Amino acid sequence: MKIAIDAMGGDFAPENIVKGINQAKKQFSDIDYLLFGDGAKIRQFLEDENHVEIVETTEIIDFHDDPVTAIKSKKDSSLVRAITAVKKGEADAVLSAGSTGALLTGGLLLIKRIKKVSRPALMSTLPTADGTGFDMLDLGANTENTAQHLVDFAILGSYYAENVRGVNKPRIALLSNGAEESKGSPMIKEAHEILSTMPDLNFIGNIESRDILTGVADVVVADGFTGNAVLKAIEGTASVLMKQIKSAIMGGSLTTKIGGALIKKPLSGLKTMMSTDSAGGAAFIGLKAPVIKAHGNSSAEAITSAISQIHRMIESDVTGKLLEHFENRVE
Amino acid sequence: MKIAIDAMGGDFAPENIVKGINQAKKQFSDIDYLLFGDGAKIRQFLEDENHVEIVETTEIIDFHDDPVTAIKSKKDSSLVRAITAVKKGEADAVLSAGSTGALLTGGLLLIKRIKKVSRPALMSTLPTADGTGFDMLDLGANTENTAQHLVDFAILGSYYAENVRGVNKPRIALLSNGAEESKGSPMIKEAHEILSTMPDLNFIGNIESRDILTGVADVVVADGFTGNAVLKAIEGTASVLMKQIKSAIMGGSLTTKIGGALIKKPLSGLKTMMSTDSAGGAAFIGLKAPVIKAHGNSSAEAITSAISQIHRMIESDVTGKLLEHFENRVE
Repeated sequence: MKIAIDAMGGDFAPENIVKGINQAKKQFSDIDYLLFGDGAKIRQFLEDENHVEIVETTEIIDFHDDPVTAIKSKKDSSLVRAITAVKKGEADAVLSAGSTGALLTGGLLLIKRIKKVSRPALMSTLPTADGTGFDMLDLGANTENTAQHLVDFAILGSYYAENVRGVNKPRIALLSNGAEESKGSPMIKEAHEILSTMPDLNFIGNIESRDILTGVADVVVADGFTGNAVLKAIEGTASVLMKQIKSAIMGGSLTTKIGGALIKKPLSGLKTMMSTDSAGGAAFIGLKAPVIKAHGNSSAEAITSAISQIHRMIESDVTGKLLEHFENRVE
Repeated sequence: MKIAIDAMGGDFAPENIVKGINQAKKQFSDIDYLLFGDGAKIRQFLEDENHVEIVETTEIIDFHDDPVTAIKSKKDSSLVRAITAVKKGEADAVLSAGSTGALLTGGLLLIKRIKKVSRPALMSTLPTADGTGFDMLDLGANTENTAQHLVDFAILGSYYAENVRGVNKPRIALLSNGAEESKGSPMIKEAHEILSTMPDLNFIGNIESRDILTGVADVVVADGFTGNAVLKAIEGTASVLMKQIKSAIMGGSLTTKIGGALIKKPLSGLKTMMSTDSAGGAAFIGLKAPVIKAHGNSSAEAITSAISQIHRMIESDVTGKLLEHFENRVE
């Protein structure tokens, strides 16, 4: 299998991107890497060029660029070239830690969505208290959705959880403002009704965002606007709380400081649990090939995790299975 | 001033309700309490009957009751009687720790919304890292909104923050999926445009849910569905994290356990900061009188806080000012 990688995207590119690849090469022997970017800079960090092909590119898309304009005008950017490689069949999947908007736009315009998928979605695997994690989508690829979009998100998420994460009959829940069937906006109620009639889907009903981190669902389906807001609320709350704990300890008495030193290790374990390093990147799912967005500030470990995630996506052929599912859907 | 109180609403009623009143009576000499419920049970906890009038009621609305049906059929419930007292002008405000749905429905049907307010909203004061707090609305009184609703929420929140919390020129932000003006659903973009043209409002633009707890805005405006999801995501994340910290410490080595014992005090301070006990209840704002919903599991302290909040609402005449604002609005 071959992965096209935007080596210049993200806050610590190409260093962390390349270091992540070095690590992944030790883990997987069946991956070839097609790297797009500044060859000289890439080679500064690359341990060896086995299984690696470097393609020189002259442009970079950054976070300030308007996504649509950038995709159309920066044809020789590392991002557009990497996406184009997948479009042309020269690679099986694409990975970037660069602009989310540009990757979504480029993926949609060039790789294109699977036929009959109403809308692709951005999905991440988030941590739960019990350690199993859950997939949530859409996290903001869409700002407005319909009930049919939500139904398609449920199918995409279910296939991903089953094939890529190995969850047997993934429990699918619909994010709403109450667990009861009667709760929600008209769109949520309509989606609930459709999902309830789908025998192949293990739909467990509505879920409130209060409960998603407890691990009661394997896939949480939301419209893009709400999903984005909930994801960022979780991140923001975790960040503020960890800072508060730190400052409560640091600003405390000597006793408190000693206590803080003693619990440093378990707290850092908690930080690891909450971190995105081990969870891989966000998948832009519903396209004809895996498109993975790593965090802009990804560490080398996070890049290795994203490569491992893509490896599982290709190996399980989740995209092929989705193509077949939607191909056979009666509309 | 006189407050009508549903003494039977909530998980620990009437005990915590009455104990909260006992405490409030020591704090405020200018409040009269009109209590609705089971007199014998109320008197078990009531320290004295100065400033208190007890009205016997025979029914209770609980969390299983359908709100609309309950309001219409349980005419002699403590909740309906308390709301009716405000409607009739026998009290200035109503407080309940009972069913949110029934209180919202009863408030809307009996007390009614302020003329020209497109939609009332549920609003709470949430804690921020810097200790100032912010008001967020709508937290779920509505499941679908329009841009005009959001604009009205901004006005309601601004008047509340300024008059009740004493914030000078409250900074109003609109919850969106990005801070830039160009971000958001069509509804958010339209609301952004209208809010930008309102000179009397200190509108500071869009805010992401990641940043709301940092204290950069005094009022955060959201549609009811998203606001509800974000609030519950904050609560859920804080709850899971605190539990994880506790179990990381308890399941750790002896050293870790000693460390945990030493930091118990600052961590419990943090818990106080994150708790809703001192923040008062959720205000159903946009109605012709203050309608306050305390948490179902409210402690006596939380009830005292809610009474103190109502005291400020009545004293500042925030409802009168809102009536005047909307009265003068050219439509």
